[in-house]
Amino acid sequence: MAKIDEVIKNIEPIDNDMMEKAQKRLDNLTKPLGSLGRLEELAKKIVGITGKENPPLKNKVIFTMAGDHGVVEEKVSAYPQEVTLQMVYNFVSGGAGINVLSRHIGARVIVVDMGVKTDISGKMIDASRKNTALKIKKINYGTKNFTKGPAMTRQEAIKSIESGIEIFEEEKEIDIVGIGDMGIGNTTPSSAIVAVYTKEKVENITGRGTGIDDASFKNKVEVIERGIKINAPNPEDAIDVLSKIGGFEIGGLAGVILAGAKAKIPVVIDGFISGAAALIAYGLAPRVKDYLIASHCSVERGHRVILNYLGLRPLFDLDMRLGEGTGAALGINLAEAGVKILTEMATFEGAGVSKKT
Amino acid sequence: MAKIDEVIKNIEPIDNDMMEKAQKRLDNLTKPLGSLGRLEELAKKIVGITGKENPPLKNKVIFTMAGDHGVVEEKVSAYPQEVTLQMVYNFVSGGAGINVLSRHIGARVIVVDMGVKTDISGKMIDASRKNTALKIKKINYGTKNFTKGPAMTRQEAIKSIESGIEIFEEEKEIDIVGIGDMGIGNTTPSSAIVAVYTKEKVENITGRGTGIDDASFKNKVEVIERGIKINAPNPEDAIDVLSKIGGFEIGGLAGVILAGAKAKIPVVIDGFISGAAALIAYGLAPRVKDYLIASHCSVERGHRVILNYLGLRPLFDLDMRLGEGTGAALGINLAEAGVKILTEMATFEGAGVSKKT
Repeated sequence: MAKIDEVIKNIEPIDNDMMEKAQKRLDNLTKPLGSLGRLEELAKKIVGITGKENPPLKNKVIFTMAGDHGVVEEKVSAYPQEVTLQMVYNFVSGGAGINVLSRHIGARVIVVDMGVKTDISGKMIDASRKNTALKIKKINYGTKNFTKGPAMTRQEAIKSIESGIEIFEEEKEIDIVGIGDMGIGNTTPSSAIVAVYTKEKVENITGRGTGIDDASFKNKVEVIERGIKINAPNPEDAIDVLSKIGGFEIGGLAGVILAGAKAKIPVVIDGFISGAAALIAYGLAPRVKDYLIASHCSVERGHRVILNYLGLRPLFDLDMRLGEGTGAALGINLAEAGVKILTEMATFEGAGVSKKT
Repeated sequence: MAKIDEVIKNIEPIDNDMMEKAQKRLDNLTKPLGSLGRLEELAKKIVGITGKENPPLKNKVIFTMAGDHGVVEEKVSAYPQEVTLQMVYNFVSGGAGINVLSRHIGARVIVVDMGVKTDISGKMIDASRKNTALKIKKINYGTKNFTKGPAMTRQEAIKSIESGIEIFEEEKEIDIVGIGDMGIGNTTPSSAIVAVYTKEKVENITGRGTGIDDASFKNKVEVIERGIKINAPNPEDAIDVLSKIGGFEIGGLAGVILAGAKAKIPVVIDGFISGAAALIAYGLAPRVKDYLIASHCSVERGHRVILNYLGLRPLFDLDMRLGEGTGAALGINLAEAGVKILTEMATFEGAGVSKKT
């Protein structure tokens, strides 16, 4: 816990003075006041986060963290559990959605085994793919079924967050971060976390995940309610919440958020699972909120509840619900567009353009 | 008119068989069915438009067309008229919003003088900027004040559309097109066009343009109503509408849309003014609708009315209202992301990933 405390202690407020300076500069660019809307807002926020007048966004990194979930025993997912492992291989081979979108935006993908049920075979990894790396921080071989007790020990919860911090800090060249997830069954712990923090009814924040039918949906709601009842996680203690009803990849992503905030690096969150990770990080250090950029609003219905709770407004809604960091990748691309507007556009004076009469 | 008729005659329906094939391929990629939402929809649409299984989107071109408007005599804009010319210089110098966003997405910008009030000085053009070109297709030195008679002659309206067609056809390497505008006062003719086609009340489709106050807004509505009353444009005759209450850049953009549809090239529309151009093109050839991709929904309030009328759903809403093609640029970027998903992602079988149980 010492590492987590140290990071939290060093998260500073974002720089309001620099944001005001950025606003003045935006207002003097050759366009009607505020006419690039949220691109301008993004640029200003990133100046505030980084404390830099011309924030570089060259080094983009997506952390896609994978973990398995014991609660799949309760038949909460439409896909078999081995898909988590298979998708990790797909990530390192460059064939998944997040690989395609990361190449599109010029980002590297760091795939992390935070707790996949099976060991990952090194032979499967195609080292020739320069924009993808695999890291093993396996906390355990999947969580336990949280309807029968805690998903993990308190020590494992701490270790998962600390591993997320380490993963972030191992990257030396990093200007902006996206976070994403892979884990069959992980909308179930995510819904449980959202219920505990926001006090929303479970049925209102539970979705169809990768695609389940009505009966399975009813079962999923009941499973989540049972898990919360049996474990009684304490929302005042984020480690308690994570250990009792969370997941290893969720802890890892919370660690990335904390480390990003400490390093003054914008963290672009993806969908429902990375939103749940944001709730854990926010529970530990409310100041992280100012370092977060919400990319899209997922189809997964609890996602909007998370964003409202954190006071974040998503940038777009493209009916996406894949996870992996795919929404975050597109969000990073918009953030880069916003910063380029700030730093590359001509001013009225510089371009000899008349101002409003 | 022969050139326009020839283009219209050659606009074919989009390819539904290819779209079905694309859907099958999308459904076999390593992701839950439909989980990349509108990115998948974009990919499918572009396959239908181009008729190509793997549509190339390498050569991206934004046509930013500029024109002046006699109706500014009626004090409908917050900016002085010379800003149109000044912004053309800003475009060719690479300092405007559209230049920044075009570089961001890897597109060329073709700036076209369709009818700026003053001649453009060749000396102002920085030929070293390889991703920007200026073309002169000046139909006239600004339109006439449409509250006192037609904005242009019928012959000028035809010529503006034909010039748009020529501009498109001069580009030999082109895979996807964005369209945008520059013209002080041009939300006024655009509102007039929208009113004539959609029968909406002028006050409901008139916005604040680049930023005008309440009294100026009231005046703007009255000016538009007066222009429509005096000219009585016939919505059954798009050339009549364009000539009486339109603008040269609006005609040019309508020409680009027609030529794009004929060439089976997706045309990404921007905000309110390019939407008005889409109404003119649609009035001439309803089939163009299927070749259009709506990028964003502008803050300009009549824009949503246009999109509903055309049955187009915008991809995003970032509170933008700059024009120039800025929203279209971001839309092209998403279209490219969608096509890459279709063409670069691994299939379940190829990646050895289990399907839904």
